[in-house]
Amino acid sequence: MTAPTVFQRLLSGEWPCAKVYEDDLVFAFMDAGQVNDGHVIVATKRPCETLLDCTEDEAAALMRAARRIARAVQAAFQPAGITVLQANKPAGWQTVPHLHLHVLPRHEGDGVGLVWPRKEPGIERLRELAAKLQLD
Amino acid sequence: MTAPTVFQRLLSGEWPCAKVYEDDLVFAFMDAGQVNDGHVIVATKRPCETLLDCTEDEAAALMRAARRIARAVQAAFQPAGITVLQANKPAGWQTVPHLHLHVLPRHEGDGVGLVWPRKEPGIERLRELAAKLQLD
Repeated sequence: MTAPTVFQRLLSGEWPCAKVYEDDLVFAFMDAGQVNDGHVIVATKRPCETLLDCTEDEAAALMRAARRIARAVQAAFQPAGITVLQANKPAGWQTVPHLHLHVLPRHEGDGVGLVWPRKEPGIERLRELAAKLQLD
Repeated sequence: MTAPTVFQRLLSGEWPCAKVYEDDLVFAFMDAGQVNDGHVIVATKRPCETLLDCTEDEAAALMRAARRIARAVQAAFQPAGITVLQANKPAGWQTVPHLHLHVLPRHEGDGVGLVWPRKEPGIERLRELAAKLQLD
């Protein structure tokens, strides 16, 4: 038996949780580490680790909930933007190994930062890369 | 009449596009600005601007496709992690005003960076913040 994840402890009520949403597949709560006020996490109820491990229905439920929460965050906190981040494995910035995404309200000069080094390989190389992807 | 977005020009075939997936609601293609090899964008076919403007079904379709693409990216490129980023409005890091998300394969030391300044306000404050959210 594996120890419950942090998010399972929140869902079960073992640890205190400021819950904002729940359906059959996912639940949402204020991130204990608020990057900006109104920062919400949406997680699967079932403790799969990453987006790659969940079902299609769980993936869909995560983003359906994120949309509703983003609309509520917009109405309540009037951010200038909203960033949705879903991280898989430590190299992808995942810190809790239980599938979740962040709905993060954003403001100009809020100190949140992204380094995003783009290369432009051209359409022929892009087509070579695309040809490697075999969707199940 | 509004000018078509960059992504509408890719979808229509007006501009060259390395497409990897398409269904009734969304389509996916290699980002012309590859941050790492295998970097894919999933966009709605209908040119809504942000996650807040789309339908529940469009939101669900985006993440369903992201899951399938992430699994294919993992198989093809064997990244150490995958980051999914969905940006709304310039303050949220959106550069093309047509709803989309990034499926980005990640590697240790790949030069992609995140600044994420967390505060821990405690459970009472989290519950006050949660109470402000009125989901539709």
